[in-house]
Amino acid sequence: MGQGANLWKKAKHIIPGGNQLLSKRAEFFLPEYWPSYYKKAKGCEVWGLDDEHYYDFCHMGVGTCVLGYADDDVNNAVKSAIDNGSMSTLNSYEEVALAEKLIELHPWSDMVRFSKTGGEACSIAIRIARAFSQKSKIVFCGYHGWHDWYLSTNIQDNSNLNNQLLSGLSTSGVPKELANTSIPVQYGSKTDLDKVFSIQANDIAAVIMEPVRNKVDLDYLRFVKEITKINNVPLIFDEITSGFRTRIGGVHMEYGIEPDIAIFGKALGNGFPISAIIGKKNIMNKAQDTFISSTYWTERVGYVAALRTLEKFKDKQVQLKLIKNGALVNSARKEASEITGVKIKISGIEPLTKFSFDYSNADEIMTLYIQEMLKKGYLSGPSYYASFAHDDELINKFKLNIIEVFKIIAKGVQSSNIIGLLDGPVKHMSFQRLN
Amino acid sequence: MGQGANLWKKAKHIIPGGNQLLSKRAEFFLPEYWPSYYKKAKGCEVWGLDDEHYYDFCHMGVGTCVLGYADDDVNNAVKSAIDNGSMSTLNSYEEVALAEKLIELHPWSDMVRFSKTGGEACSIAIRIARAFSQKSKIVFCGYHGWHDWYLSTNIQDNSNLNNQLLSGLSTSGVPKELANTSIPVQYGSKTDLDKVFSIQANDIAAVIMEPVRNKVDLDYLRFVKEITKINNVPLIFDEITSGFRTRIGGVHMEYGIEPDIAIFGKALGNGFPISAIIGKKNIMNKAQDTFISSTYWTERVGYVAALRTLEKFKDKQVQLKLIKNGALVNSARKEASEITGVKIKISGIEPLTKFSFDYSNADEIMTLYIQEMLKKGYLSGPSYYASFAHDDELINKFKLNIIEVFKIIAKGVQSSNIIGLLDGPVKHMSFQRLN
Repeated sequence: MGQGANLWKKAKHIIPGGNQLLSKRAEFFLPEYWPSYYKKAKGCEVWGLDDEHYYDFCHMGVGTCVLGYADDDVNNAVKSAIDNGSMSTLNSYEEVALAEKLIELHPWSDMVRFSKTGGEACSIAIRIARAFSQKSKIVFCGYHGWHDWYLSTNIQDNSNLNNQLLSGLSTSGVPKELANTSIPVQYGSKTDLDKVFSIQANDIAAVIMEPVRNKVDLDYLRFVKEITKINNVPLIFDEITSGFRTRIGGVHMEYGIEPDIAIFGKALGNGFPISAIIGKKNIMNKAQDTFISSTYWTERVGYVAALRTLEKFKDKQVQLKLIKNGALVNSARKEASEITGVKIKISGIEPLTKFSFDYSNADEIMTLYIQEMLKKGYLSGPSYYASFAHDDELINKFKLNIIEVFKIIAKGVQSSNIIGLLDGPVKHMSFQRLN
Repeated sequence: MGQGANLWKKAKHIIPGGNQLLSKRAEFFLPEYWPSYYKKAKGCEVWGLDDEHYYDFCHMGVGTCVLGYADDDVNNAVKSAIDNGSMSTLNSYEEVALAEKLIELHPWSDMVRFSKTGGEACSIAIRIARAFSQKSKIVFCGYHGWHDWYLSTNIQDNSNLNNQLLSGLSTSGVPKELANTSIPVQYGSKTDLDKVFSIQANDIAAVIMEPVRNKVDLDYLRFVKEITKINNVPLIFDEITSGFRTRIGGVHMEYGIEPDIAIFGKALGNGFPISAIIGKKNIMNKAQDTFISSTYWTERVGYVAALRTLEKFKDKQVQLKLIKNGALVNSARKEASEITGVKIKISGIEPLTKFSFDYSNADEIMTLYIQEMLKKGYLSGPSYYASFAHDDELINKFKLNIIEVFKIIAKGVQSSNIIGLLDGPVKHMSFQRLN
């Protein structure tokens, strides 16, 4: 067991859950053997606490580092801002420039607010929409963070979030008074949405959804737009995950469907905390009838990082490479599957592509995949978040390694003994306590 | 009107409220003439968009930059972390080191969670406390951010926050279902707290308060500790503003009163976003029964900045200079008052000292003070947040300038014509819409 795995054991004693993000817990990848911590990250390379080297074909900072880790252009802009003071009693002028830039990229929008994290941005959008509607109920699908307004949906039915990326979640600590204020609908189901609106249209404050997670349903999105418009209910597109991957801006611009509010985070700052809420003036200005204010939202780094990231996105047409790299990784997986006979399923948009093993013991097999890829010097799991830092040569090398690992898996499948090939316990995605 | 004031006018058209923090809006200082934006900040010096130079004797980044702006030691640590990648698929090992450090500074605590902003940290503490108590109601005094759980107190009575730093606040957009979940008490009033507990002790999830804002009441804090202990209700000290000013850690350590949870932000990262929730194990571990998770909380910069800030705090015994500087600024104000006969009132702890003019037209006089200090090259208003970057010579120079400005004020007071001396409108602290 390396220093990283050891530190993770220690961390769980002093940080409940071990860290600040579920998607970075070792148990989701390779319990006991995941390196867990990094010393250095550059491009798509990561060095662990024992100076061991990895190529990151995993989630690249949970989808934040689209340009790659420690991108020189973004870093130089940020370091210069830090030299010139990242905080002051006065405001950062870069926040106005970034607001202008986001409006330029999304001509339907007029006003912008900023925060640091995705969860905050969702809560701000919800507050503004509720201030506009003067109602409480939120209709949603997809994932929108850890805040009360969202988790409260599980108060009325503990399985409400099971189809929204968060299966088996407890709502302990969410005030029960919020029961029935958050109503889940299934992406793609017009019937679902129609039913909700036909029963309680007058109580709905907003509809919030990710315009795409796995596969876009344009017909559905047009229906969503129509039903919200008819009922004068603000439509919020949460583009924290989808934004700035297939294009410079929100994926909704590609679909030609305009929301009333859109939310960005993750890729926007290439790893530096920044999130944005953009929207139409008549709705956004309702932010002035309430109190939405936080000291660290005024810090300069996020604005500077985002401005430079967007500039580079445009200069290098980053999105084209992200789409291409996602397609190449999918081809690599498919080739490995064909050569070895190991059955897989692929899903997701190209810059954020996922795969799973098509077997009843899929978790065991994925654990073996992660274990063997790690031994070959790769951070790799079910998801690949495409990055500008991956190139054809690296992806080809990655492919050759996948094929080798799939051969090991094929043997395990044939002998019905995957467990026997594992050095440690099987990964799990549940919310169980870590001790 | 300078470039800064012009950009502020423009910003208000595309950012509702003009920026991300009320305390940084021009209208709170000098409407129409406040510089609003900075190009560079170093030590206690600030350069505006026209390269004009100011000494900051104001709030030094709303109390974040205790070491001074762009502190070389903190900046070098941060820039090195950025060179080595500020984000990755793996975790930052520095978060474990910072957790250990905070526990070492507060031996009553066992576990730590981190976030980026103060508002988030308060919401996390509330979630954890509610998960522990399995109840909804929060008893509070003081200021705790923009989130629903806090603002909801104004649903039952729109004046509930008037005595808590946020007078005249609308709760538009806060779900009415949260009515009666947030109960204000007055700092120092045992009767208030006693009454709340005698009526609804069984419904109280937590008590949250700032242990000190203006002047500590130890007898009251001991009472708070006792009543929460007897009733098995977690006590949360919000030390976002008070922490790391009078000592290395929470001010409660000085008072010898241990909460169950304490929250830090602001000064902790010397201007780089980081906030922390520390607490006892039996309570903190309840974070594992709920979902508290956000991508950008895992970013490295805040952890590195905080570790270096705390190191420097210890090396240089920063708190002693903060206390001393606050006392010197108070002396300067008093001397100016004595020399000129202008009546003032001083309040607050020394590292965070405030003054006001003791006249019925206090706002007019404060506007004149800000206007004239600005002309002399100072950012200065009612509050002085002490910084390690201020020294005796600078404070003495500041004093000579205050005296000159107080002489102008004295003339205005004597001729009952402060307004005639103002170049623009009077400042205001209200939540009114900006257009």
